[in-house]
Amino acid sequence: MCHRLFYLHPHLVNMRPPESFYWSFSLCLGLGLLCVLFVSCWSGVWLGGFAWDGSDLQFNWHPVFMVSGLVVLYGISAVVYRVPSTWGQRKSTWKLVHGGLMLLALLLSVLGLYAVFDFHRAASIPHLYSLHSWVGLCTVGLFAFQWVLGLASFLLPCSPLWFRSRLKPVHIWLGTMVLILSLTSCISGINEKLIFSLDGSTKESYNSLPLEAKFANFLGILIVVFGMVLLRILSKEEWRRPETDESAYPLLDGHRS
Amino acid sequence: MCHRLFYLHPHLVNMRPPESFYWSFSLCLGLGLLCVLFVSCWSGVWLGGFAWDGSDLQFNWHPVFMVSGLVVLYGISAVVYRVPSTWGQRKSTWKLVHGGLMLLALLLSVLGLYAVFDFHRAASIPHLYSLHSWVGLCTVGLFAFQWVLGLASFLLPCSPLWFRSRLKPVHIWLGTMVLILSLTSCISGINEKLIFSLDGSTKESYNSLPLEAKFANFLGILIVVFGMVLLRILSKEEWRRPETDESAYPLLDGHRS
Repeated sequence: MCHRLFYLHPHLVNMRPPESFYWSFSLCLGLGLLCVLFVSCWSGVWLGGFAWDGSDLQFNWHPVFMVSGLVVLYGISAVVYRVPSTWGQRKSTWKLVHGGLMLLALLLSVLGLYAVFDFHRAASIPHLYSLHSWVGLCTVGLFAFQWVLGLASFLLPCSPLWFRSRLKPVHIWLGTMVLILSLTSCISGINEKLIFSLDGSTKESYNSLPLEAKFANFLGILIVVFGMVLLRILSKEEWRRPETDESAYPLLDGHRS
Repeated sequence: MCHRLFYLHPHLVNMRPPESFYWSFSLCLGLGLLCVLFVSCWSGVWLGGFAWDGSDLQFNWHPVFMVSGLVVLYGISAVVYRVPSTWGQRKSTWKLVHGGLMLLALLLSVLGLYAVFDFHRAASIPHLYSLHSWVGLCTVGLFAFQWVLGLASFLLPCSPLWFRSRLKPVHIWLGTMVLILSLTSCISGINEKLIFSLDGSTKESYNSLPLEAKFANFLGILIVVFGMVLLRILSKEEWRRPETDESAYPLLDGHRS
């Protein structure tokens, strides 16, 4: 208890969290959940379900993992740090939650990439020819770079404090860029898959706007709205976690406490 | 001269503009110019050139107007307000420059939409079926709404000062959202056009990555990098034009002075 109080910044103890944050955060969670449900339903029902055998059904994991990991889990991990009720708690704990959720999002994204590469290999389709794949690969590459840089700079004790404070705005900007690129990748990917899936089959063509097209287009709009609400939360200065003077080296806290 | 000095905020008179802004702004201008050159070259050479007769050649204006208006001119207009050498000049002048350039960007975007709608009508292709078209139309609609709201709130004397100060962060956020949506629309649009143009013709298929595909994919990457540099400029607090206490009603300045 004494240990926990050590980390409570005096002005935070009686602070009431802004209610408007919780409205936006709940909206974000609700939209994120809808995105995961919609993409799972699209892949699971209209695209034929799932398998891990190099067939079209293996490809179907790709949109599910990318939307769930690279957009929804990534987005939630980016704002979880700003939940006002956590401001009075140890910053190091929330650094680990932020970094841990981001790692899970990164693993899902890599698994999503593996699903599509494996499908291409089995079907002898060339890798990385479309603009969607170029932007998507840059997004995951930038995300991996950002995660490793974040770990080395903000969690491990190998970087000086002046470097952390200089890097923080770059970390926030680069994180926002990954989110924007992930939205761009998802929208171009859903559009591309609908063209291939509807126009390259015996289904109704994309331009006749069958129910599948309306459903997946609506998924795209949901993703865009999710991103907009998330970026609104990130843009609000008053919703940033206030700076506290606790340990800068959370991974060494065990030795220090 | 006396009139001009009235608008000079005391702390700005001897202020030296940050050089790093000009590096980023020049990079932005250079990338924007490259985007316009690349999209003009793609439409003008690989897609067959331009016409205004309902044919494929009328469609070719669509990417040129959207990239030039909705991305490049829109982006430059968003940051022109932040050029440090203008901070000592009348804010009202730069409000008009910002609004005027935005109007030009909006007109180019509407012309770009007209080109594709007219092409669809002549070729009996249904309108607005793809996710690209849904996101693109939302983008231009949001841009038009933002422009009218900006005009009514920041240029015309019909809104009180408290409303302006409350609206300003929303105006900045909404403007950033339009930019992000315009990037998303352009990337999904270039991807879609490459699939239709290469896979639906006697040209080499998209997945064999012919020179046209490499060129247009590279245009997409240029657009993404342009957007990232622009968003970096917009994210820097120290590059925001400082608040001054001049007239809030620039369109009435003629009557007041």
